[in-house]
Amino acid sequence: MRIIPTYLATIYNPEQKMSLPLENDFIPHLAFDSVIFGFSGEKLKILLMEYHNTAWLALPGGFVGKNENLNDAVRRGLQERTGLDKIYLEQFYTFGDLARFKPEIMQTILAANGHQVAAENWMLDRFVSVAYYALINYHEVEPKPDALSDSIAWYDVDALPELILDHSEIVKKALETLKSNIDRKLVSMNLLPPRFTIKELQQVYEAILGEKLRRTTFQRKILSLDILERHEKLYSGKSHKAPFLYSFKGNQMGN
Amino acid sequence: MRIIPTYLATIYNPEQKMSLPLENDFIPHLAFDSVIFGFSGEKLKILLMEYHNTAWLALPGGFVGKNENLNDAVRRGLQERTGLDKIYLEQFYTFGDLARFKPEIMQTILAANGHQVAAENWMLDRFVSVAYYALINYHEVEPKPDALSDSIAWYDVDALPELILDHSEIVKKALETLKSNIDRKLVSMNLLPPRFTIKELQQVYEAILGEKLRRTTFQRKILSLDILERHEKLYSGKSHKAPFLYSFKGNQMGN
Repeated sequence: MRIIPTYLATIYNPEQKMSLPLENDFIPHLAFDSVIFGFSGEKLKILLMEYHNTAWLALPGGFVGKNENLNDAVRRGLQERTGLDKIYLEQFYTFGDLARFKPEIMQTILAANGHQVAAENWMLDRFVSVAYYALINYHEVEPKPDALSDSIAWYDVDALPELILDHSEIVKKALETLKSNIDRKLVSMNLLPPRFTIKELQQVYEAILGEKLRRTTFQRKILSLDILERHEKLYSGKSHKAPFLYSFKGNQMGN
Repeated sequence: MRIIPTYLATIYNPEQKMSLPLENDFIPHLAFDSVIFGFSGEKLKILLMEYHNTAWLALPGGFVGKNENLNDAVRRGLQERTGLDKIYLEQFYTFGDLARFKPEIMQTILAANGHQVAAENWMLDRFVSVAYYALINYHEVEPKPDALSDSIAWYDVDALPELILDHSEIVKKALETLKSNIDRKLVSMNLLPPRFTIKELQQVYEAILGEKLRRTTFQRKILSLDILERHEKLYSGKSHKAPFLYSFKGNQMGN
């Protein structure tokens, strides 16, 4: 049986057809989209949803309840899609161009899910979308599709397929933000196990920046930032060969 | 005669009473607010509007037309209030907490302008506000109040009066963004004349960061960033005593 996200469960129709979100429950014209980054150990990836019967790929997103804080709405959606809470979430841009207003896209998605809606249906209106990014531990995540989607899966950011609407632009801007914040905000924190080697950290940086870094330069720079704590090696027959393990000092992240 | 901003002129009532913005012209539930920074030479300041007959102070803001890009709406509002266009504008956060929903504030502002509106009027709805900051040349600006406001004036950011709604929080977040971006984005560019001394640049940094910096350390750091171009001194009787003038390399800013 398909697992239905809790916020849809209340309006879930057991004939496997999702009831439409009701205009009275949500703020009209306002949506959110989430760019959820994970690191496989080699590649930086994001989560994409595939809509039923369309093969269209999109960022996980949703609407904001009339009695719900914007940030809470986004955390709710993300928790339902990833099964994770208490993850690092950052709002990075609100997309409000007229060019993103393409009602035929939503109409087709709804039709592919068995809904014919009138032209004046609120879901076909112009939407401004507040975009967030999240950094999650790829290995802890069990993505779950919602009722509108066939699947949710990881895709390499350096080889993304075509996305609906302006979602490719949203991903591009999320990546730019991630790159410009990489040192200052330690955003890689959730992309690594609690203790990691300098080499593993370098791989995350390389995946985000999209370029190879010199090992010696990287090590010198990252240590000079004074953000890492070095841990004692545990005794083992090979311990003298093992690299040091580090963790981030403090954990100022979370939300 | 009061100068009416162009976007209000079309709905301007010659009895000095502004006609209400019409629900059909704007995206409901969506507003913007602008934190407009200027530097006096000593102090970092922002522009605040005072509403008629209330003494309430607020950031300049507005609504987004149904057929207008979000960013265009914000530039329009800013141009009308400051008389400047082509200025550096950065979107920094969208405020969407339920706690900012206080319909009685807007109701009082409208009443003070001679408008009694029904409880279901769209202007009394919950609004999510997309916030921008701008950096403008304090000495080039001639702020103009709009039809709802008595005045628009500069206020020191380190001694701000109480503001309506969550506008103090919006200013705080704008300042945090400005501080964290100061090196990377050279946001001080519009806060200085085209050519400036290191001392003048240091004053801008100090005003934004809210702390005094050591002259020698500042000079070494700023020069090491390789973002400044030094100009030849012009000949004059005292030229050997005059400090060097600098400009920023390139001008990657603007919008």
